[in-house]
Amino acid sequence: MKTLLKNVMRNGEKTSILIENGKFAAIAPELSAEGADIIDAGGKLAALPPFYNAHNHAAMTLLRGYAEDMELFDWLSNHIWPVEAKLSAEDIYIGTKLAAVEMIRSGTVYFNDSYWHPEAALRAVQETGMRATLGLLYLGNVSDDAKSANAALIEAAEGVDTVRVAHTPHAIYTVDKPMLQSIAKMMESDGRQVHIHVSETAKEVEDCLKEHGMTPVEYLDSLGLVNERAMLAHCVHLTGHDREIIAARGAYIAHNPVSNMKLCSGMFNFEAAKKAGCKIAIGTDGTSSNNNLSMIDEMKSAALTAKVTAAVPTAGKTADIFHAATVTGAEFAGMNSGAIAVGKAADMILVDLEHPVMSAGYDLIADMVYAADSSVINSVICNGKFLMRDRIIPNESDIIAEAREVCRKIASWR
Amino acid sequence: MKTLLKNVMRNGEKTSILIENGKFAAIAPELSAEGADIIDAGGKLAALPPFYNAHNHAAMTLLRGYAEDMELFDWLSNHIWPVEAKLSAEDIYIGTKLAAVEMIRSGTVYFNDSYWHPEAALRAVQETGMRATLGLLYLGNVSDDAKSANAALIEAAEGVDTVRVAHTPHAIYTVDKPMLQSIAKMMESDGRQVHIHVSETAKEVEDCLKEHGMTPVEYLDSLGLVNERAMLAHCVHLTGHDREIIAARGAYIAHNPVSNMKLCSGMFNFEAAKKAGCKIAIGTDGTSSNNNLSMIDEMKSAALTAKVTAAVPTAGKTADIFHAATVTGAEFAGMNSGAIAVGKAADMILVDLEHPVMSAGYDLIADMVYAADSSVINSVICNGKFLMRDRIIPNESDIIAEAREVCRKIASWR
Repeated sequence: MKTLLKNVMRNGEKTSILIENGKFAAIAPELSAEGADIIDAGGKLAALPPFYNAHNHAAMTLLRGYAEDMELFDWLSNHIWPVEAKLSAEDIYIGTKLAAVEMIRSGTVYFNDSYWHPEAALRAVQETGMRATLGLLYLGNVSDDAKSANAALIEAAEGVDTVRVAHTPHAIYTVDKPMLQSIAKMMESDGRQVHIHVSETAKEVEDCLKEHGMTPVEYLDSLGLVNERAMLAHCVHLTGHDREIIAARGAYIAHNPVSNMKLCSGMFNFEAAKKAGCKIAIGTDGTSSNNNLSMIDEMKSAALTAKVTAAVPTAGKTADIFHAATVTGAEFAGMNSGAIAVGKAADMILVDLEHPVMSAGYDLIADMVYAADSSVINSVICNGKFLMRDRIIPNESDIIAEAREVCRKIASWR
Repeated sequence: MKTLLKNVMRNGEKTSILIENGKFAAIAPELSAEGADIIDAGGKLAALPPFYNAHNHAAMTLLRGYAEDMELFDWLSNHIWPVEAKLSAEDIYIGTKLAAVEMIRSGTVYFNDSYWHPEAALRAVQETGMRATLGLLYLGNVSDDAKSANAALIEAAEGVDTVRVAHTPHAIYTVDKPMLQSIAKMMESDGRQVHIHVSETAKEVEDCLKEHGMTPVEYLDSLGLVNERAMLAHCVHLTGHDREIIAARGAYIAHNPVSNMKLCSGMFNFEAAKKAGCKIAIGTDGTSSNNNLSMIDEMKSAALTAKVTAAVPTAGKTADIFHAATVTGAEFAGMNSGAIAVGKAADMILVDLEHPVMSAGYDLIADMVYAADSSVINSVICNGKFLMRDRIIPNESDIIAEAREVCRKIASWR
């Protein structure tokens, strides 16, 4: 299987890109390849790395707009959790497919997920051709259902090279110390990553200080869970010492600017984390607290809030934000992708340079971070295959119709 | 000229909408009209009021991404102003057409503009079929060129019912007191509106307090410029007394959340202004400080920043934000539009309910504010005419090609 893209814009020049066996095989001004599927972009499409969504609860697409403008506890206890308790594995499979379609449309090829029935999400990921890290869920006293879902995920993900399985304890206030310790122990033997909500709210930090005499980052570090295999979601309320720990251990931060604003969790200090040497990736969080999965929207909010938090317009530079949304997320994904370079897995977006917001053309990265939205994405390639080609995603309308049925059912529960 | 839309979704029900002579002529479940252009939406498109952009410098599309991540003074003095000084009326005509295409694509039918060569912007507005309030520009010692541009605007706008001409003194620190007084005097006789930047930065407020012993709002009020014909752009740094004045006078605030964040101007307190009874509209500001003209993006930032500023997630309710971006802007535009109701001027967008982000369908307004981007806009009708039909805008590619030429010229000035 070979694909040859000709006259694609890259770093301001027309070039050719050959994709073979899921990898970038050659990149040069002029290339030819016998038997290849040839696409001539005529200089009208730019090749860029796609987006890697570092923190998601994908199937929450089923709850988009279900309950808005509420106090956090009312929202969770009276609206979100009661519905989630009723969702079946099949519902979550459908909701994850809807999420995949939306992510593909906005240029994302990978998401780091944490949600119920990850074994059902796996089917959706495989059918839509995306990459993902799916989570073994730990929340409260892990139920037998959750245990069997986790076991099913491990079994089904075996040998799937576009999917990794990580431990996803929800948070330090919903997972007790013995369980966190046992996850740290499992990580030593199974080599898996960990993905957890950390220091999302001021209350979480206060409570942790009271209970453990440590910040949430210090506490997790004391349990051996802050390391180069950890994705720490939110990290809104960090001390300087927290940042030092995260940087020294090589852990990742998943920055979720929209969710942090929507839930009034606080503002993540991008520049402080960057200066401390932390690895910062970007995630959308679930659609209930966003309410979309567009990494393009998320980059804009990340850049704007970086400026606001640092109180200088030189903060949140477009190159740093784009790097976080692409390269750093891909690094955590660990699938040899995130850059358009020979030998790398062929993940790529083609961006429409004829779109009104892309037409000035002074600064492609600034245009992507600040001016673009999903409508500029012409095509999405993941692992060498087109997930969207010339704005068409196979089966999109079927997926949407299925999802609507589930949402009608949820509405009937009210 | 008649257009009949059948099976359009409105308030959750299928309906028919008849447009005749630029107005909504009838709205009922079943309608027929001889000789009408009939569109059957099959329940897949929702009818909503379009967006009215309350504060813009449209032709700055030519400078989108030209200079990013800089200190305000460096950015303006060394990058933006030197280029603006060289832009011709023809350049601004082309830049405004590019802005119009982008605004139409994202569902906007009206903008309140302030920029050089408004007489050239007028041509663009008329050719693209949008509505606008264009500004008589006052900045520093108004040059002879600016004076003749202003005179040309007044002459050319005469009798154009989709365009109004307003006084647009730039700000209190760039327009002196005698000039502001003479504008107030002109307004008494010519009945025009006024559009001015107010209390955008902390420095502006400090300087005004030092020089006049009053806040910028108090100062403008003392000159008679705060009234029901005034659009006060930004209003980031307001006192309680300022809000009382604005509410009592019936003046409008143009809230520009993205620009305020990008330039680190501060955060506008939406809830405080709402509680005080101020009329709040929403604007994108120019693309140099945004960098797009999408009112959909702007609504999301307005909702998020309202929550952050009030520190409660119940602030910035979706209905209030949508009202600000549609009804309140339309009210200032003063062209009998902004609502889908019989007798109103026929301004309307058709939203694609089959789009992945719109498919849950629990709350259309929340989906528009938080989940949508320009890709959900299927069609745009202004004054009874399609500006975009099924995502096609006439002459779009020509306009983009022309704009690119101008941007290449600007790049060559570096």
